[in-house]
Amino acid sequence: MSDDSVVRPRPEAAVALRPVSSGGRVEGGFWGAWQRVNREVTIPLGGERIRESGAFANLELAARGAGGEHRGKVFADSDVYKWLEAVAWERGRADDESLAGAYARAAELVAAAQRPDGYLHTHTQLTGRARYSDLASSHELYCAGHLMQAAVAGRRAAGDDTLLRVATRFADHLVKDLPPDALDGHPEIETGLAELYRETGARPYLDLAARMIATRGRSRLPLKGHHGPGIRQDRVPLREATAVEGHAVRAVYLAAGAADVAVETADRGLLTALESQWRDMVATRTYLTGGLGSVWYGEQFGGPHELAPETAYCETCAAVGSVQWSWRMLLATGEPAFADLMERTLHNAVLPGVSLGGDRFFYVNALRVRAGANPDDRRSPARGRQDWYGTACCPPNVMRLLASLDHYRATQDGDGVQVHLYAGGTIRAGEVLLEVETDYPWDGRVEIAVRETPARPWTLSLRIPSWADQALVNDDPAAGYHRVRRAWQPGDRITLDLAVRPRLTTAVPRLDVARGQVAVERGPLVYCLEQTDHPGVIVDDLCVASPDLRDGPPVPGLPAEVVPVLARGRAHEHRPDDDGFPYRTATGPREPEHTGPVELTFVPYYAWANRGAGPMTVWAPMH
Amino acid sequence: MSDDSVVRPRPEAAVALRPVSSGGRVEGGFWGAWQRVNREVTIPLGGERIRESGAFANLELAARGAGGEHRGKVFADSDVYKWLEAVAWERGRADDESLAGAYARAAELVAAAQRPDGYLHTHTQLTGRARYSDLASSHELYCAGHLMQAAVAGRRAAGDDTLLRVATRFADHLVKDLPPDALDGHPEIETGLAELYRETGARPYLDLAARMIATRGRSRLPLKGHHGPGIRQDRVPLREATAVEGHAVRAVYLAAGAADVAVETADRGLLTALESQWRDMVATRTYLTGGLGSVWYGEQFGGPHELAPETAYCETCAAVGSVQWSWRMLLATGEPAFADLMERTLHNAVLPGVSLGGDRFFYVNALRVRAGANPDDRRSPARGRQDWYGTACCPPNVMRLLASLDHYRATQDGDGVQVHLYAGGTIRAGEVLLEVETDYPWDGRVEIAVRETPARPWTLSLRIPSWADQALVNDDPAAGYHRVRRAWQPGDRITLDLAVRPRLTTAVPRLDVARGQVAVERGPLVYCLEQTDHPGVIVDDLCVASPDLRDGPPVPGLPAEVVPVLARGRAHEHRPDDDGFPYRTATGPREPEHTGPVELTFVPYYAWANRGAGPMTVWAPMH
Repeated sequence: MSDDSVVRPRPEAAVALRPVSSGGRVEGGFWGAWQRVNREVTIPLGGERIRESGAFANLELAARGAGGEHRGKVFADSDVYKWLEAVAWERGRADDESLAGAYARAAELVAAAQRPDGYLHTHTQLTGRARYSDLASSHELYCAGHLMQAAVAGRRAAGDDTLLRVATRFADHLVKDLPPDALDGHPEIETGLAELYRETGARPYLDLAARMIATRGRSRLPLKGHHGPGIRQDRVPLREATAVEGHAVRAVYLAAGAADVAVETADRGLLTALESQWRDMVATRTYLTGGLGSVWYGEQFGGPHELAPETAYCETCAAVGSVQWSWRMLLATGEPAFADLMERTLHNAVLPGVSLGGDRFFYVNALRVRAGANPDDRRSPARGRQDWYGTACCPPNVMRLLASLDHYRATQDGDGVQVHLYAGGTIRAGEVLLEVETDYPWDGRVEIAVRETPARPWTLSLRIPSWADQALVNDDPAAGYHRVRRAWQPGDRITLDLAVRPRLTTAVPRLDVARGQVAVERGPLVYCLEQTDHPGVIVDDLCVASPDLRDGPPVPGLPAEVVPVLARGRAHEHRPDDDGFPYRTATGPREPEHTGPVELTFVPYYAWANRGAGPMTVWAPMH
Repeated sequence: MSDDSVVRPRPEAAVALRPVSSGGRVEGGFWGAWQRVNREVTIPLGGERIRESGAFANLELAARGAGGEHRGKVFADSDVYKWLEAVAWERGRADDESLAGAYARAAELVAAAQRPDGYLHTHTQLTGRARYSDLASSHELYCAGHLMQAAVAGRRAAGDDTLLRVATRFADHLVKDLPPDALDGHPEIETGLAELYRETGARPYLDLAARMIATRGRSRLPLKGHHGPGIRQDRVPLREATAVEGHAVRAVYLAAGAADVAVETADRGLLTALESQWRDMVATRTYLTGGLGSVWYGEQFGGPHELAPETAYCETCAAVGSVQWSWRMLLATGEPAFADLMERTLHNAVLPGVSLGGDRFFYVNALRVRAGANPDDRRSPARGRQDWYGTACCPPNVMRLLASLDHYRATQDGDGVQVHLYAGGTIRAGEVLLEVETDYPWDGRVEIAVRETPARPWTLSLRIPSWADQALVNDDPAAGYHRVRRAWQPGDRITLDLAVRPRLTTAVPRLDVARGQVAVERGPLVYCLEQTDHPGVIVDDLCVASPDLRDGPPVPGLPAEVVPVLARGRAHEHRPDDDGFPYRTATGPREPEHTGPVELTFVPYYAWANRGAGPMTVWAPMH
C-alpha cells in the first residue's frame, strides 16, 4: 500500500508511532475550509507572485547556462520548491490537469536548471560566485533541502519523479563533492536529506545529514555583523545544548532534521537532547499562541521568559517549523505534549500568517499592536497583512503545511490508531478506515465512526487536549491519550466531547504578562481584542472586569461560524497628566482608575486584521 | 572674553538662555571623579583602541593618496574625530604636553588625509567608491559633522585651529560641490555645520544645514533591507512630524541640528515641531533611565509605550545625543523640563555606558537582564561591558560628553545666571563667579558661594529637579526655577537643600511596567537589583514587599560613597510545574505566592555590572 506521508520513518527507525499509511483526507469543517482556500486562492496566487518575483526567471536563465542577472534574494529558489511541495501535496489530495500542468512546467524548469554534475542554486550559477564559498549566507544547502522535500512530496503524493531525479542527483553530488565540515548558515538540508534517504534508501544521504548535525555548534561558520555563533546554532553542539538559540526558523528546522536523524540512527542521546530543548522552549520561549521568536533583530529566540507581546516576532515560518519538529518528536516518543503544541501552533501561530481570503500574509505575528505603532517596516503588524514580501519564505511555507495537513492528524502503532488533531474527514490506517465528523474547534463534539476494521481487537487512542479541563469519551471522563480497545465492527461509533467554552488564562510569575493580565482562550483558539470592535476607547486601555465570559453572536465582517467571546470590561482612565513624563513617585503600583463599563468582544487571534489593521491585544489587564 | 562653550548660539539667535561664557570648571565630587577617570583612563585607552582598530592607519593611507585597504567600519573616521573632540575639551579644562601632543599628531594626520579640494572620508578615498554615491550608508557627511564638532572644540577649548582649517575647507567644498538634495543616512552634519557657522560666521554652512533639514522626510534616500524610510528619518519632514521615529541616535542627532538651525534662523515653526516631538518622546518613548530606543532591530525607537525593560536597546550614543538635543532646547526655551531629562539621562543612561574604572563599555543599556539571558551578541548586556566594539561609536561619545560636561551646568540671560546641574566647582558667567560645593547626588545639600559679582542686582536661578518633592533654598520652599534676585556681594552664600532619599516609582497604565511593579530612585539616580547582592534567589523572582526604603551601608566592591537602598522583599515562589507550559487556566491573574523574606539591596543603575555581569532588574513586582 502506498504511503504518502509527509514524514515517513524507515521500518527500522526507533519511533513510538508511525504515520498512517495513506488515503485519509480532511473534508469539510474548519480545516477543510482552510484547505479549500489554500488550493483555490493561495497556491495559484503564490505561483503568480513567485513568477513576478523573478524566481522562475532565475531558473530559466540558469537553464540556459549563460549567466544573467539573478532577481530576488539568494534563497529565491526555495520559494519555488516550497510552492512545488504544496502543489504536490494538493495533487495527492485531488489531482487535476491544472495542478499537474503547473507542477510539470515548474519541475521541468528546475530539472533544466540543474548543472550536469547535479549542482543547483541559481544565485550561485548566475552570479558566478564559487560554490560553497559563502555558506554562512548563500543558502545553497537550504535551497537544496527544500528541493529534496518537494521531490519527496512529488513522488509520494503524485507519483511524479521529475524532482526526485533532480534531488537525488544533487544529493549524490553533495555526498561526493561537498567540502568536509561544510555547513549552511540556514539549516534545512538535514531534514531534506533524511527524508530523501527514507524515500530512496540511500544511506549516504542520512550519513551526510548526521555529519552536518555533529559538525555544527563548534563556531566554524564565519560570523556576520554583531551576531555571535549562536544566531546560526553554531555555538554549542546540538547534542550538548539545553535550550534553543538564535534564529528561530533555523533552530526549529535544525531540530526537525536532527529528530529525523536521531530516530533513523537510534541515537538516543541526540533525541534526549532534543526533548530537553523542546521542553525548555515550551516552558520559557513560547508565546501563548505557540509563536516562537521574541527578538526582531536576527529573527531570534530571546532569553528565557523574554516574551513581550508587542515585540514578538513569531515569524510564520517558525510556526511551520515548530509543527514539523513537534510532529517528529511525537512520532519518536508518542507523548501528547508534542501534539498539544502542534494544535496550539497550527491554530494560533500558523493560521494568522494568512488572511481569511487566502491572499494576504503576515510575516510577523505580534501578540499586541498599540495605537500609534510604527508602520515603517513592511513586516510591521501595524500595517496589516501584505500582498507578498521581498523575502517570501512564509507564504509558501503555509501553503505546503496546509496542503499536507491530512498527514498530521493521526498515527498508528502495533496496537492501533492514535488521533491527535480533530478535523472532519477520513483517516486511513492500514485496514482501518475512520470517519470523523466535527465542528471543532467551534464545538467540542467529535464523532468518529469506524467504517472499516480488521476482525482482531485494536486500540483507538484519542488525544485529549491539555486545555480541556473536561472531556468525555462515550460519557467516560478522559485525559491524556484516552484508549478504547475492543474488537471493532464497521459502524461502531465513538463520541468525544471536549468542553469547548471560553476561559481565562494567566501565566507563571516569571512571565511579565502574568502581572495583572489575562488572555481569553476557547478550545484550541487564542482570542484577542481588536480596535474595530471597540469604538470610542483604544485597545491599549481596555481591561477585563469580570471572569464571566460568554459566547457571542456572529461578528460583522467575520465568517458566521466564528464564535466571539464577550466579557464585561472597562477602560483605564488615561489622565491628562499621563501625557507627560510617565513615571511617578508612589508608595506602590498605581491603583487603576477606570472609565465606565465597556463590553469586550474577543475574536480568534488567527482572524485578526481581516477587517482592517489596527490596535490589537491578546493580553489585557484584569481588575 | 573667550567663550569655550560646546554650543554657542550667535548673538542674534532666538534663544531664551545663553551658555555661560568661560572659565568655570567642575572640580571634585561625583562628576569631578568621573572626569578624572575619563581624562586619566578612558581617553588614553580610547586613543589606543582607535589605533588598534586601524582608524589612524586609514588616515595615514589616505594621506599617502595611493589607496590601500580600509580597516574597520565606513564611519571609522568619526571615532578619531569624537576622540579628538574629547581631547580638545580636556585641553580646555587643563592643557598639558601629553594631551597637546596627542592632539597635534592626530589633527595633523587628519589634515594630511584631506584631499586638495577639501573632501575627506578615508573609506571612500581608499576604496575608490564615487563620492556621495551611497549616502544612505556611507556615513560621509556623518563623519564630516563629527570633524566639524571636533574642529570647533579645538578652536574654542585649546585655541588650536588645525582641525578648523580642515573643517572649513571641507564645508566650503560641500557648499560648492555637494549634489543638491544630498542627505546622509545618518544625520550629524547638521549640528556640525551649524556650530561651524557659529564659530566662523560663514552663513552658507547654516544654509546648507537648513537645506538638509528641509529636504529630509520625503523618502528620497534609497531603502535598505526591510526598513522603510522612517528608519532614517526620511518618512515625514521634521517640521510636520509629531513623534521621533527610526534609529534613535540618528533621530536625536537630527533634532539637535534642527534645534541649532531653528534658533539661528528664528524658525519658530521648526522649533515648535521639535518641542512637540521632544514631549511625545518623553511621554511615550523614554525609559525611566532616560534611555532611548526600545528596538534592537535597526537600533530604533518603538511605538508609543513600547518600553519593555529587557529588550531595551538604549544605546549609549542615543543618551549622549539626547543630552545634546535637550541642552539646545533648554537654551531655546528656558524650560526646566529639558534640564530634568538631561540630568536623568546623564546619571542613568550615559554613565552606565562606562565602567567605574573607565576602561569597559556598554553599547546597549537594558533595564533588565534575566537569568540565562542569551550572551551571543557582543552587545548583549548579559556579557557585561566590553573592552571595545567593532562599531565603536559609544565610548568616544561618552568621552567627549564627560570632557565637556562643565559647559552643560549653567546658563545666563539678561537677568542673571541659571544653574541647571549640580556639580562641585566653579561657574563663570561674565562678571559672575560662583563656587559650588556639594556631595550631590548622594546628598541633596548644595552650597553656592558668590565669589565675584557686578554691583548691579541680578538673579540667581536654581533648578529644582522635578523628582524633588521637597526643596528649600535658604529655608524657603522652592520649585521649578527658584529665582533669587538681589545685589550680590562677594562671599554671599545660598543653600539649596533637596530631599535626597529613596523613593518608589511607578508608571502610567499604558506602560506595561505599571502593572504591579515599582522601581527605586534616590535623588537623580535610578537604582536596580543585581544578582550578586542576592545569593540564594534569582533576581527574576525578587519582589518588593514594603514601601519602606532606607539608605544602607557601603556595598562591598563598590566605591564607599555609593549609597545603596535597602528594602524588605521576598521572592516569587517558582513551583516545579512552572517549568512546564507557562500558561494556565484561571479565574484571574495569578495570586503571587512567596518564599521567605529577602533583604533587597538596590544599587545605582549606572554602577551595575561592575562586580561581574549577571541578572539585574530596574523594575520589580511589589506585593
